[in-house]
Amino acid sequence: MAVASVSPTPLLKDELDIVIPTIRNLDFLEMWRPFFQRYHLIIVQDGDPSKVIKVPEGFDYELYNRNDINRILGPKASCISFKDSACRCFGYMVSKKKYIYTIDDDCFVAKNPSGEEINALEQHIKNLLSPSTPFFYNTLYDPYREGADFVRGYPFSLREGVPTAVSHGLWLNIPDYDAPTQLVKPRERNTRYVDAVMTIPKGTLFPMCGMNLAFNRELIGPAMYFGLMGDGQPIGRYDDMWAGWCIKVICDHLGLGVKTGLPYIWHSKASNPFVNLKKEYKGIYWQEELIPFFQSATLPKDCTTVQKCYIELSKQVKAKLGKVDDYFLKLADAMVTWIEAWDELNPSEGDSAELANGVGKLTV
Amino acid sequence: MAVASVSPTPLLKDELDIVIPTIRNLDFLEMWRPFFQRYHLIIVQDGDPSKVIKVPEGFDYELYNRNDINRILGPKASCISFKDSACRCFGYMVSKKKYIYTIDDDCFVAKNPSGEEINALEQHIKNLLSPSTPFFYNTLYDPYREGADFVRGYPFSLREGVPTAVSHGLWLNIPDYDAPTQLVKPRERNTRYVDAVMTIPKGTLFPMCGMNLAFNRELIGPAMYFGLMGDGQPIGRYDDMWAGWCIKVICDHLGLGVKTGLPYIWHSKASNPFVNLKKEYKGIYWQEELIPFFQSATLPKDCTTVQKCYIELSKQVKAKLGKVDDYFLKLADAMVTWIEAWDELNPSEGDSAELANGVGKLTV
Repeated sequence: MAVASVSPTPLLKDELDIVIPTIRNLDFLEMWRPFFQRYHLIIVQDGDPSKVIKVPEGFDYELYNRNDINRILGPKASCISFKDSACRCFGYMVSKKKYIYTIDDDCFVAKNPSGEEINALEQHIKNLLSPSTPFFYNTLYDPYREGADFVRGYPFSLREGVPTAVSHGLWLNIPDYDAPTQLVKPRERNTRYVDAVMTIPKGTLFPMCGMNLAFNRELIGPAMYFGLMGDGQPIGRYDDMWAGWCIKVICDHLGLGVKTGLPYIWHSKASNPFVNLKKEYKGIYWQEELIPFFQSATLPKDCTTVQKCYIELSKQVKAKLGKVDDYFLKLADAMVTWIEAWDELNPSEGDSAELANGVGKLTV
Repeated sequence: MAVASVSPTPLLKDELDIVIPTIRNLDFLEMWRPFFQRYHLIIVQDGDPSKVIKVPEGFDYELYNRNDINRILGPKASCISFKDSACRCFGYMVSKKKYIYTIDDDCFVAKNPSGEEINALEQHIKNLLSPSTPFFYNTLYDPYREGADFVRGYPFSLREGVPTAVSHGLWLNIPDYDAPTQLVKPRERNTRYVDAVMTIPKGTLFPMCGMNLAFNRELIGPAMYFGLMGDGQPIGRYDDMWAGWCIKVICDHLGLGVKTGLPYIWHSKASNPFVNLKKEYKGIYWQEELIPFFQSATLPKDCTTVQKCYIELSKQVKAKLGKVDDYFLKLADAMVTWIEAWDELNPSEGDSAELANGVGKLTV
């Protein structure tokens, strides 16, 4: 059988930054060397700024600790969390690249069922460079993948798809469970390799995990804010969830796609469920009100850029979630500060999403 | 590692009928013997009623040809298509069982990546007996499956799920492509085994294929009408699509779930793309208006049974799709006839969906 020639996935090595939040030496990069060494790393050091983080030789990186964040953002540094991996979003802000890949330092290279090491970044790039299909479900999964297509009954007018803003990758070994599930199922491991990439349909929310996540910074960057978590805040471990709800509402509004599925990374160790429970318990309660809020959130037509959408969303957060807890009033203010800081560091990108959308459709 | 003891999947052998539309001898059943022999078959013979269809020995079956359909339904037989596999829905109507599995006679037993034969029916039963999760996306796929669960950030209030009405299985080898795609990619074969079952989110439509499909007849049966296709009609090959759009709108309204993914069957032969193009071309054009119609269709609160929902939908079809083509006026009438015929053959089930919903939540 003839096999169509497939063009190789672009490396995007000058267009992509890898953002890593950490409190320890980055020995985990050794395993990623063949896949990451050609890229620029942005390391966001959490915790004690006087501690020296060792980065293996041969990697090209810039590193920011809390002192750097305070110096660069001044009073606006208040929007960046401390003692929580939510600090990673500072890296999204200082990047000047079109694409971001972010990964936790306890994530290693996974193997596919054939035993081959998975180049997670390459799969994310594939996901981001091919369109998404949020308006109608394709039962054979990603229709742009080699060997697949749209099935009978899929409207032809929707087959061009929409630009992909976010690629959410998964985890083998330790699944991303909340504290109660960790406590109930301490031994559960994810061993199932599901060979699929899916577009999350328009109007559907999902729990976005920041452990293995890539996105198009020009299309959605200003909405990738990981909120106020950790030190001095009443919750933790909801940084990526918060960002996920916000980006999904905005992507749906702007006609952008969000994918989930491949690639897998190997998540090496479960965090402490008792510590997690302390961080999460308010979030577990609050999310019962947050999800309906985001499910019913709509943005007016004049919100044509990510920034405008995000500011509008912050107003709705203040108006509707303030009654859940005062924390959301503070968070709504931080959302505004985040956008101000973003625009200060990225002055030419004020209308990034609008421009990017206007450039034309992405093609595979 | 301890493995939780898993109770075996119920056979449901007295609660499930297998419906097979055919025009030829059913030799394909030989391969299915180990999986189907304990079940009752309802064979709907299409085409020339004088032809004798041979069924392999040892199967328990009833067979209906066109003469039987005309005799049983009288003038209402007009709603059952002729010379088209849409005639299969007559089998759903005459069944007295709670569950239906329907399969095409060119579908064979597929193998999983380990080389084991897949018991498709068992997987469908698993899908139907475990809840669906249409309100929020679980990134690790079916949360009720062994070794999986809801991930961090999934609202606890939604973890009970909703009853599953439909289980849509997939196909290895010949993918279910439309005629244009068949013509463009004559050699494409589906070789990718995706080890997942997904709930189609609320508000999202999908192309439902009737080749390998199971459903809970009590929950959704009266909406599983395959429309007017084939002989004397302007289109074909949209029977299952039509049913899929209707059942999805009604399941969303009634709070029922629709799953897709496993199990796979082996689809042995591609139908003739030139013949298919002739059957499909109006549908390919019409679906561009049908999909937005179904995407925006809403049902009033007093539609509390499948029958009421379906009658309401038929009115909307008449009012809004009649202008697309007169065919939809005829189809809207046939939808009403179908419900009348269904209620005639199933007199005690008038409020089946309401009752079934009231019985309480399904548990795994």
